[in-house]
Amino acid sequence: MDLINVDSLIDSAMTIGGQLLLLIIVYLIVAPLGKKAVTSGVEQTAKRQKLSEGRTKTLQNLLVNVFTYVLLFFFIVTFLGILGIPLGPILAGAGIVGLAVGFGAQGLVSDIVTGFFILIEKQIDVDDYVTAGGHDGIVEELGLRTTKLRGFDGTLHYIPNRNIQVVNNHTRGNMRALVDMNIGYSENIDEAIRVLQNVCDQFTGDGRLKEGPDVVGVQSFGSSEVVLRVIAQTEKMEQWGVERDLRKAMKEALDEAGIEIPFPHHVVLNKNEQ
Amino acid sequence: MDLINVDSLIDSAMTIGGQLLLLIIVYLIVAPLGKKAVTSGVEQTAKRQKLSEGRTKTLQNLLVNVFTYVLLFFFIVTFLGILGIPLGPILAGAGIVGLAVGFGAQGLVSDIVTGFFILIEKQIDVDDYVTAGGHDGIVEELGLRTTKLRGFDGTLHYIPNRNIQVVNNHTRGNMRALVDMNIGYSENIDEAIRVLQNVCDQFTGDGRLKEGPDVVGVQSFGSSEVVLRVIAQTEKMEQWGVERDLRKAMKEALDEAGIEIPFPHHVVLNKNEQ
Amino acid sequence: MDLINVDSLIDSAMTIGGQLLLLIIVYLIVAPLGKKAVTSGVEQTAKRQKLSEGRTKTLQNLLVNVFTYVLLFFFIVTFLGILGIPLGPILAGAGIVGLAVGFGAQGLVSDIVTGFFILIEKQIDVDDYVTAGGHDGIVEELGLRTTKLRGFDGTLHYIPNRNIQVVNNHTRGNMRALVDMNIGYSENIDEAIRVLQNVCDQFTGDGRLKEGPDVVGVQSFGSSEVVLRVIAQTEKMEQWGVERDLRKAMKEALDEAGIEIPFPHHVVLNKNEQ
Amino acid sequence: MDLINVDSLIDSAMTIGGQLLLLIIVYLIVAPLGKKAVTSGVEQTAKRQKLSEGRTKTLQNLLVNVFTYVLLFFFIVTFLGILGIPLGPILAGAGIVGLAVGFGAQGLVSDIVTGFFILIEKQIDVDDYVTAGGHDGIVEELGLRTTKLRGFDGTLHYIPNRNIQVVNNHTRGNMRALVDMNIGYSENIDEAIRVLQNVCDQFTGDGRLKEGPDVVGVQSFGSSEVVLRVIAQTEKMEQWGVERDLRKAMKEALDEAGIEIPFPHHVVLNKNEQ
Amino acid sequence: MDLINVDSLIDSAMTIGGQLLLLIIVYLIVAPLGKKAVTSGVEQTAKRQKLSEGRTKTLQNLLVNVFTYVLLFFFIVTFLGILGIPLGPILAGAGIVGLAVGFGAQGLVSDIVTGFFILIEKQIDVDDYVTAGGHDGIVEELGLRTTKLRGFDGTLHYIPNRNIQVVNNHTRGNMRALVDMNIGYSENIDEAIRVLQNVCDQFTGDGRLKEGPDVVGVQSFGSSEVVLRVIAQTEKMEQWGVERDLRKAMKEALDEAGIEIPFPHHVVLNKNEQ
Amino acid sequence: MDLINVDSLIDSAMTIGGQLLLLIIVYLIVAPLGKKAVTSGVEQTAKRQKLSEGRTKTLQNLLVNVFTYVLLFFFIVTFLGILGIPLGPILAGAGIVGLAVGFGAQGLVSDIVTGFFILIEKQIDVDDYVTAGGHDGIVEELGLRTTKLRGFDGTLHYIPNRNIQVVNNHTRGNMRALVDMNIGYSENIDEAIRVLQNVCDQFTGDGRLKEGPDVVGVQSFGSSEVVLRVIAQTEKMEQWGVERDLRKAMKEALDEAGIEIPFPHHVVLNKNEQ
Amino acid sequence: MDLINVDSLIDSAMTIGGQLLLLIIVYLIVAPLGKKAVTSGVEQTAKRQKLSEGRTKTLQNLLVNVFTYVLLFFFIVTFLGILGIPLGPILAGAGIVGLAVGFGAQGLVSDIVTGFFILIEKQIDVDDYVTAGGHDGIVEELGLRTTKLRGFDGTLHYIPNRNIQVVNNHTRGNMRALVDMNIGYSENIDEAIRVLQNVCDQFTGDGRLKEGPDVVGVQSFGSSEVVLRVIAQTEKMEQWGVERDLRKAMKEALDEAGIEIPFPHHVVLNKNEQ
Repeated sequence: MDLINVDSLIDSAMTIGGQLLLLIIVYLIVAPLGKKAVTSGVEQTAKRQKLSEGRTKTLQNLLVNVFTYVLLFFFIVTFLGILGIPLGPILAGAGIVGLAVGFGAQGLVSDIVTGFFILIEKQIDVDDYVTAGGHDGIVEELGLRTTKLRGFDGTLHYIPNRNIQVVNNHTRGNMRALVDMNIGYSENIDEAIRVLQNVCDQFTGDGRLKEGPDVVGVQSFGSSEVVLRVIAQTEKMEQWGVERDLRKAMKEALDEAGIEIPFPHHVVLNKNEQ
Repeated sequence: MDLINVDSLIDSAMTIGGQLLLLIIVYLIVAPLGKKAVTSGVEQTAKRQKLSEGRTKTLQNLLVNVFTYVLLFFFIVTFLGILGIPLGPILAGAGIVGLAVGFGAQGLVSDIVTGFFILIEKQIDVDDYVTAGGHDGIVEELGLRTTKLRGFDGTLHYIPNRNIQVVNNHTRGNMRALVDMNIGYSENIDEAIRVLQNVCDQFTGDGRLKEGPDVVGVQSFGSSEVVLRVIAQTEKMEQWGVERDLRKAMKEALDEAGIEIPFPHHVVLNKNEQ
Repeated sequence: MDLINVDSLIDSAMTIGGQLLLLIIVYLIVAPLGKKAVTSGVEQTAKRQKLSEGRTKTLQNLLVNVFTYVLLFFFIVTFLGILGIPLGPILAGAGIVGLAVGFGAQGLVSDIVTGFFILIEKQIDVDDYVTAGGHDGIVEELGLRTTKLRGFDGTLHYIPNRNIQVVNNHTRGNMRALVDMNIGYSENIDEAIRVLQNVCDQFTGDGRLKEGPDVVGVQSFGSSEVVLRVIAQTEKMEQWGVERDLRKAMKEALDEAGIEIPFPHHVVLNKNEQ
Repeated sequence: MDLINVDSLIDSAMTIGGQLLLLIIVYLIVAPLGKKAVTSGVEQTAKRQKLSEGRTKTLQNLLVNVFTYVLLFFFIVTFLGILGIPLGPILAGAGIVGLAVGFGAQGLVSDIVTGFFILIEKQIDVDDYVTAGGHDGIVEELGLRTTKLRGFDGTLHYIPNRNIQVVNNHTRGNMRALVDMNIGYSENIDEAIRVLQNVCDQFTGDGRLKEGPDVVGVQSFGSSEVVLRVIAQTEKMEQWGVERDLRKAMKEALDEAGIEIPFPHHVVLNKNEQ
Repeated sequence: MDLINVDSLIDSAMTIGGQLLLLIIVYLIVAPLGKKAVTSGVEQTAKRQKLSEGRTKTLQNLLVNVFTYVLLFFFIVTFLGILGIPLGPILAGAGIVGLAVGFGAQGLVSDIVTGFFILIEKQIDVDDYVTAGGHDGIVEELGLRTTKLRGFDGTLHYIPNRNIQVVNNHTRGNMRALVDMNIGYSENIDEAIRVLQNVCDQFTGDGRLKEGPDVVGVQSFGSSEVVLRVIAQTEKMEQWGVERDLRKAMKEALDEAGIEIPFPHHVVLNKNEQ
Repeated sequence: MDLINVDSLIDSAMTIGGQLLLLIIVYLIVAPLGKKAVTSGVEQTAKRQKLSEGRTKTLQNLLVNVFTYVLLFFFIVTFLGILGIPLGPILAGAGIVGLAVGFGAQGLVSDIVTGFFILIEKQIDVDDYVTAGGHDGIVEELGLRTTKLRGFDGTLHYIPNRNIQVVNNHTRGNMRALVDMNIGYSENIDEAIRVLQNVCDQFTGDGRLKEGPDVVGVQSFGSSEVVLRVIAQTEKMEQWGVERDLRKAMKEALDEAGIEIPFPHHVVLNKNEQ
Repeated sequence: MDLINVDSLIDSAMTIGGQLLLLIIVYLIVAPLGKKAVTSGVEQTAKRQKLSEGRTKTLQNLLVNVFTYVLLFFFIVTFLGILGIPLGPILAGAGIVGLAVGFGAQGLVSDIVTGFFILIEKQIDVDDYVTAGGHDGIVEELGLRTTKLRGFDGTLHYIPNRNIQVVNNHTRGNMRALVDMNIGYSENIDEAIRVLQNVCDQFTGDGRLKEGPDVVGVQSFGSSEVVLRVIAQTEKMEQWGVERDLRKAMKEALDEAGIEIPFPHHVVLNKNEQ
C-alpha cells in the first residue's frame, strides 16, 4: 500500500462525492419544482376542463404521490449505484418479481389509467344515470380504481374501471320517449294517426317535454298489426314517466274512437278427417 | 507472488468487508423499520377505512410476509454478489424459470391483488348476499385467493378472486320489490290502478317496507294484456317476501273487483276448405 | 496526484465537453427542423386528404407535442449519460415500471393510434350517423382518445377509440330504402306487382329519392305469405321517412285493389276423441 | 512465459478452487436443510389445514422434487460458470428455447399452480359431487395436472386444472330441494297453499330432510298458471329423491282436493270470414 | 499532454474516420441497389401474379418507403455509434417507449401485413362483392390499412384489415341459385317433380344460367310439408334475380297443376270439458 | 512482433484447446448417458403407468430426439464461442427471429405438451369413443401434434392437441341409459310406474345391462305431461341400443295398459265477436 | 506512431483476416451441405408420408428458401461483427422494430407453421370436401399461408391457415346417410319398421352403398310423433343423394301401407265463456 493507491482512493472518493453532491442537488431542485409543476398543471387542466374542486384535489394528490414515489425510487437506486453497491442483481431480481407482479397487477394499472380519463373527461358524474361495464345505475361514487353504481333494484355494483369499456351516459341532455301503438289491418291508418296526434297535442305544455310528441308514421307491419310510432323529446330521466302517460292516454283514445288494438290473428282452414 | 499482490488482496478484501458491513447495517436498519412502517401503515389505513380488526390482522400478516421475503431475497442476492459468486448465470437461469412460472402464476398474483382490494374497499362482507364471478350466494368466507359463496341451492362456490370482475352486492342499503300485473285490454285502466293502489295502501306500516308500494302506471302493452307496474322499497333481503305477498294480495283484489287477468287471446278467422 | 492525472482529467473533460457541445448543437438543429418538418408534413397530408382546418390543427398539435417530449427525453438521457451519472439502473428501474405501465397503458396508446387513423382517413365526421363500437348514433365529438356518439334515445355514448373496430358510416352517399310487402298465396302475383309498381311510380319526382322505388320480385315464401320486395335509393338519412311513406301507400293500394295481406294461416284437421 | 504468468495462473486457480469449494459447501448445507424445511413446512401446513396423509405425501414429494431440480440446475450453472466455460451463449440459447417452451408450457404450470391450491384449500375431495370446468360429476381422482370427474351418464371427464375456474361443490353441507307447483287462475290460493302445506307436513320426520318442506308463497304468474313454490333443506345428494317424492305427493293431493293443475289456456275470438 | 496522446488521438480518429467512410460507402452502395432490388422484385412478383399496374405501384411505393426508412434509421444509429455518442441509454429509452407503442401499434402492423397479402394474393378487387370482417358489400377501395365496403343498404363500412380473418368472395366464378319449394304430404312427389322440372326446362337458354336449374329431389320433411330442392348455376351476381324468377314461375306452375303449397297443418282432438 | 506475443498466443491457444477438450469430453460423457437416462426413464414410467409398447416407443423416440437436438445446439454454440467467433450478434439475431417464430410456433409447442400428457395419462386410446375439441368420435390415431377422430357421419376430424381442453371419454367403464316417458295428467302415477317397472323387469338378464333398468320417479311436470324417468347401467357403447329397446317396449306397454302418452293440451275459451 | 502499433495493427488485421477466412470457409461448407440436407430430408419424409411430387417440391422450395435467408442473415451479421462495425445498436434498433413487427406478424408465422403441418400431415387435398375455419367447401388450392375453399353456393373462401383450428374432412373414407322418419303414436311400431326395412332392402346392390340401409329402431318420442331412424354407409359425397332417394321411397312406402306421417297434434279442451 503506497501513496499512489491512497491517491487513487481519494481520487475516486472525490469523484463519488462529486457525483453524490450533483445527485442531491438535482434531487433538491427537481423534487419541489416537479411537485409544483404537477400541481399547477393539474390546476390549469382542471380549469380548462371546468372540473369541480374535489375532483381536482383527487387528481393532484394522485399525481403528486406518483411523482414523489418515482423520484424517490430513482434517487435511492442512483445513490446506491454511486456508492458501488452492486445494483445489477437487485434490479434483475426485482425484474423477475416485477414481471410476475406486472402481469398480475396490469389490471390495477389499467383501472387507474381508465379511471383517470373518466375523471378528466368528465364522462360520468355522481348522480348520473349511466350504463357501464354491463350494469345500469345511478353513480354513487367515482374512484380511480372502482366506480360504484346503484342499480334500479337497489343492488350496489362495484365496477373496476378497466371493465368500463364504453360509457353510456343517459343524463347528458334530453332523452327521447318512444311509444309504438298497434292498430288492426282493417283500420284506416289516416284516422288512427289523427286520433293519436290529437292525444299528442294535448301533451303540449307539459313541462317534462322539450319537443313533440309526434306520430312519425307506419313503422312496420306485424303479423296481425300495423305499428304506428310516436316519439317525443323529454327532460332527462322523465322519459319513462312520459311514455307511461302517453301509453295510457293513447290506448284510451283509440278505444274511444273505436279503433281496434288487435290480438294475434289466425286464419284457420278447417278440414274434417275421415 | 510478491507483496503487492497480497496488498491488493487485502485491499480488495477490505473493500468487500466494507461493502458487506454496509449491507448488513442497511439490512438491520431497514428490516425492523420497514416492518413497523408496514404494520402502522396498514393500521392507519384500516382506521381510516374502518376495517374490522380481523381484516386488519390478515392484511398486516400478508404485507409483513411479502416485505420480509422480498428483503431477504435482495439481501442474499447482494451478499453473494459482493462475495464475487457469479450471480449472472444464476439469475439468468432463474429468469427463464421465472418467465415460465410467471406466465403460469400470474393468475395467482392477480387473485391476490384483486382480493386485496376487495378487502380494503370492503366490497363484500361475510353474510352479504352478492353476485360475483357469475354466481349468486351468501358470502361464507373472504380470502386473499378465494372467495366462498353459499348458493341458494346449498352449493358451495369457490371463486378465485381474479374471476370476480364486477361485484354486485345486494345487501348495501334498501332493495326494490317489483311486481307486474296484467289486465285485459277491455278493462278500465283507471279502475284497475285504483284497485291495485288500494292493495298497496294496505301494506302501509309493514316493517319490511321503507317506501310505499305504488302503482307507477302502464309499463307496456303485451299481445293480450296491459301491464301495470307496482314498485316498493324494502329492507334488504326482504324484497322477495314482499313481492310474494303483493302478488297474492293484488291477484285476489283484481278477482274481487272483477277485473280480468287475461289468458293469451287469439282472433280466429274460420274458413272451410272445399 | 501528478500532472498526468490532471492531463487525463482535462483530457476527459474536453472529451465530455466536446460531446456535450455536439449534443446541444444536434439538439438545436434537430428541434426546430423536426417541428417544421412535422408541421408541414401534416399540412401537406391534410391538403392531399382535404382535411378541414380544425382537424389539421389537432393533428399538428398532437404530433409536435409527441415530437417535443420524445426529443427532450432523449436529450436529458444523453446529457446525463455524458456527465457520467450512471443511467443503467435508472433506466432498468424505469424499465420495470415501464413494463407494468406499458401493459396497463397499451389501451391508451391503442386509442390514440386508432383515433389518429380515424381522423386522417376521415372515416367519421361530426354530425355523421355511424355505427361504431356496438353503438349507433350521431357523432358529437371526435377525439384522439374518445369518440362521442349521441344515440337515438338521447344517450351520450363515450367510446374509447380502441373499441372502434369497424366503422359503419351511414352518411357516405345515398342509402337504400327497403320494404317487404306480404300477399296471400291465393293472390295473383303479377297483379300485386302491378299495383305495387303503380304506387312506386307515384313517388317519382320525390326530392328525397335518387332512384326507383321498384318492385324487384318474389323475395321469399313465408309459411302463409308470398313476400314481394320493393327497393329505392334515397338521400342519406331520408331512408326511414321514405320507407314509412311507402309502407302506408302500398298497404292502402293493396287494400283498394282487394289484394289480401294475409294473417298467419293454419289448416286444422279436427278429430273428436271418444 | 515467465514466473509471473505462472503465479497469476496459480493465483486464479486458487481463486477458482476457493469459489468451487465455497459453492460445494453451500450446496451441501442448503440441500438437506432445504429438503427438511420443505418437508416439515408441508407437514405443518397439512396439520393446520387437516389434510389427509395421502394428500400431504403428494405435496411433499412434489415440492421436494421441485426444490431438488431447481437447486441442481443452479449448482451446475454456477459450477460451469466458475470453471470459465462461457455460459452466456448457452443460457441465451436456452433463453430462446425457453421462451418458445415457456409460451407453450405455461398451461402446464398453470395446471399445477391451480391444482396445488385445489389440494391445499380442499376445494374438492374424491367422491364429492362437483361442477368444474363446465362438467358435472363425482370426483374420481385428484391430480396436480388433471382432475377426473365421472359424469352422470358414465362419461369420464379429464379436466386440466387450469380449466377449473370456479369450483361448485354440491356436497359441502345441506342442499335445498325446490318444487314449483302450478294451479289455475280460478283456484283459491289460500286453499291450495293449505293442501300443499299438508303434504309438506307429512314429510316431517323423513330422515333425508333437515328443514321444512314449506310453501313459501306465490312465486310468479305464468300465462295460464299461478306458480306456488315449495322448498326444503335436505341431506346432500338427497335433494333429487326428495323433489321426486314431493312432486308425486303434491300432484296427488291437488288432484284429490279438486284443484286444477292447468293446461295452457287460450281465449279464442271466432270470426267467420265472408 | 505529450505526443503519444496526440498519436493515439489521431490513431483513433483515423479508425473512426475509416469506419465512417466504410459506413458511407456501404450505405451508398446498399441504398440504390436495395431500392432497385425491391422495385424489380415487386415487378416480377406482380408479373407472375398478374397484378394490375396500379396495385404494383402501390406495393412498390410501400416497400421502397419501408426500405428507405429502415436503412436511414440504421445509418443514423451506426453513425452516432461510431462518433461515440452513447447510444445505449437512447436505445434503452426508445425500447421502453417502443414497448408501450409496440403493444398499442401492433394492430397497425397487423393491418398492413394482412393488407399486403390481400393485395398480393388478389383475394379481393374493387367492385367485388365480398363478405369480410362481418360485413357484406361491394369493395369500394382497397388499402394497406383499411378496406372500404359499400353495404347493400348504402352504408360505407371501413374495415381495418386485421379484422378481415376469412374473405368470402362472391364474385370468383359462377354462383349457385337455390330454391326450396314446399308441397303437401298428400301430393304425389313424382308429379310435383315433373311440374317443377318443366319450369326448369323453360329456363334453358337464359343467358344468366351456366347450368340448368334442376330438381335434385326430396331435401327434407317439414312438420306440414315435403321440401323439394331446385338448384342452378348462374353468372355471378345473377343468382338472386334467377332465384326470384324461379320462385315466381314455379309457384304459378304448382298452382296451375293443382299441387298444394301447404299452410302449417295441425290435427286437433276436441274434448269438451264438463 | 516479439516473443511475448507469441507466448501469449500460445498461451491463449492452449487455454482454448483445453476448453475445447473439456467441452468435447463433457459432450462425449453427457450424450450417451443422457440418452440412456431418457430411454430408461421413459421405460420405467411406462411400466409404472402400464403403457402399451407402441406408446412407449413413440415417447422414447420423441424424447431422445429432443435431447439430441438440444445437446447438439449447445455443443455448437459453445464450440463457436470458445473459438472466439462472436456469437452475441448471431444469437441476438436469432433472438429476434426466435421471438417472431416463438409467438407463431407456441401453438406447436402447446400441441406437443398437451399430446404428451394425453399419451402418458392414457386419457384416450385408439378405438375409444370420446368428445374432444368440440367433436365426438371414435379415436383413429393418437399423435403428439394431432388427434384424429372418426365422427358418426363418417367425417374424419383432425384436432390439434392444443384444442383439446377437456377430454370426455365415453368408454371408461359402464354408461347409463336414460329414457323419459310422458303420461297424461289424468293418469294414475302409481299404475304407470308399475307398468313401466314391469317392462324394466323383463330386461333382467340382458347381457348388455349391468344394473336395473329402474323407474326412479316423477322427474318433472311438463305443460301437458307428467314425466317419469327410467335409468339403467349398461356396458359401454350399448346405451343407445338399450335406450331404443326400452323406448319401444315401454311405449307398447303403456298402450296396452291404456295409459295415455299425451299430445300437447290446450284449454280454449271460445268467445264469439260481434 | 511507432512500430509496435503497426505490429498490433497487423496482428489484429491478421486475427480479423483469420476469422473472416474461417467464417467464409464455414459458410461455403455449411451452405451447400445444408441445402442438400434439407432437400433430401424433405424427400425422405415425403416418401415415408407418401406425399405427391408437387407437394414435395413446394415444401423443398420453402425450406431451402428459409434456410438460405437465415444463413445469409447470420453470415452478414457475423461478417460485419468481425469487421468491427458496431452491431449492438443496429441489432437493438432491429429488436425494437422486430418486436413491433413480431407482434403484428405472428399471424403470418402462425399461418405458415399451421400450413406446413396441414401439408405434411395430408389433412386436406385439393378436391376434398372439408369444413375448416367455419366454412364448408371443396378445396381449390392449398397454400402455406392461405387455403381456398369453394363453397356450395359458389363463394370462394380465402382462409388464412391460422384460422383453421380443427379440420373436418368429409372425404376420408365412407360417409353415413341418416334419415329420420316420423310415424303416428297410434301406429304399430313393428309394422312400420317392417315397411321401412322393406324399402331398405330394395336398395341392396346400389353401387353407392357400402353397408345397409337399416332401421335401427325408435330414436326418440316427439310431441306428436314416434321417430324411427334409418342409417346406411355410402361412398363419400354420395350420402346426400342416397338420403334423398331413401326419403322419397320410404315416404311413398308408408303412404302405401297406410301408416300415418303425423302433423302436429293438439288436444283442445273447449270451454265456452259466459
